[in-house]
Amino acid sequence: MQSVQLFGIPGLREIRPGDDLAAMLIEVVRASGLRIGTGDIFVVAQKVVSKAEGRIVALETVTPSPIALSWAEQHGKDPRVVELVLRESRRVVRMDRGILITETHHGFVCANAGVDSSNAPPGSVILLPVDPDRSAAMLRERLEAAFGARLGVIISDSFGRPWREGLTNVALGVAGIEALVDFRGQKDTFGRVLQVTVIAVADELAGVAELVMGKTRQVPVAVAQGFSFAGQGSGRQLVRPCNMDLFR
Amino acid sequence: MQSVQLFGIPGLREIRPGDDLAAMLIEVVRASGLRIGTGDIFVVAQKVVSKAEGRIVALETVTPSPIALSWAEQHGKDPRVVELVLRESRRVVRMDRGILITETHHGFVCANAGVDSSNAPPGSVILLPVDPDRSAAMLRERLEAAFGARLGVIISDSFGRPWREGLTNVALGVAGIEALVDFRGQKDTFGRVLQVTVIAVADELAGVAELVMGKTRQVPVAVAQGFSFAGQGSGRQLVRPCNMDLFR
Repeated sequence: MQSVQLFGIPGLREIRPGDDLAAMLIEVVRASGLRIGTGDIFVVAQKVVSKAEGRIVALETVTPSPIALSWAEQHGKDPRVVELVLRESRRVVRMDRGILITETHHGFVCANAGVDSSNAPPGSVILLPVDPDRSAAMLRERLEAAFGARLGVIISDSFGRPWREGLTNVALGVAGIEALVDFRGQKDTFGRVLQVTVIAVADELAGVAELVMGKTRQVPVAVAQGFSFAGQGSGRQLVRPCNMDLFR
Repeated sequence: MQSVQLFGIPGLREIRPGDDLAAMLIEVVRASGLRIGTGDIFVVAQKVVSKAEGRIVALETVTPSPIALSWAEQHGKDPRVVELVLRESRRVVRMDRGILITETHHGFVCANAGVDSSNAPPGSVILLPVDPDRSAAMLRERLEAAFGARLGVIISDSFGRPWREGLTNVALGVAGIEALVDFRGQKDTFGRVLQVTVIAVADELAGVAELVMGKTRQVPVAVAQGFSFAGQGSGRQLVRPCNMDLFR
């Protein structure tokens, strides 16, 4: 019987810019007593990665542009936050009913370009990491060295989606595992070749990791054991190119 | 340290219309030796539920309408399958580049209205269950009686999504657990009230269950242990009403 297990790792203190996040992760995992081995996958919340990388902006330093002022006034938003959302974006996808959905410079399509005030120090907001795949790769290198094992790392964040209610966690950055697993060419139980069954395994892993992390408790890291997705995937692969997308 | 575990339950034979799926699930779970207790969540692939409920259509019985014939001819599809997709739909959301995305009678927005030939007997296709919440509730009742425990049930299927590559498993039907968990009103680590953090927990559970089920092996059922989402959610709650959706 195949089984997998996920652990929420407690004990990480509030992260500040410049903190050595990898060292802190290693410390809390060791303190937890969890044994780490090859194939284990670390899922780390974007928020702590962004904080360690200094992606915190004090709102008093932001001068809003006219469109940011206008939109903020129409919808009761903070114009400085709107300005940061626009700066983090390369394209506005929807700007309607007070909702601002944009395509970030990474290509992620999400509300407010991932700019978020929750769990941010007062008077500031947190931006997405500049390069989540690179953040994942750097964490992976440190974690692999510390634990002497081949590991996977996912940097995750909660995004909304069209058509369905509720947010789900998705993978922004990926290292050491496949992001997409392609079942095409395999045969189904009747021997018929499966047509379109590319599964976003990194997103599904990010999703369940959220369930063990919790949103308000300080558990921004989970470890998944028992999966076997070692590979060279990336968060970029999960971003559908605009010209292949029917909904932008 | 919070931990959760998922088990793929092997041994289910090919399901035929009229099979007593609940009895068969109970049998394979018992044979697996897994101990079932209150709070455990069964995730069952839509495909086996549909088969047991007789939602299999022999293509030779289907007469395509003119638009089905036209679309099929343009894009090299089977016109009888296209006809079934249209019959299962209340609205076409996109019909472009050979891709047919519709809103089903349930309200799900997905490719081909969930009509699928993979794992279907030759010459036939499988439709979504008529009422996945009802299917989940009926399975739940039987499973709870058999195992003497309060359980959750999710009926899952793989859907694509805009903006991101790859399919993820989502919850079509839900019984005995929350589908959405609302963290609004809770406080973040700085004491600030969280604004929009409604998490689609049933979708995240369906997603990871897929990873232990596999697509081509006959493991259409997984059991999740260690979560605590007991409640009265439904798959319907996960469907965003059309008038609240910016992408239809």
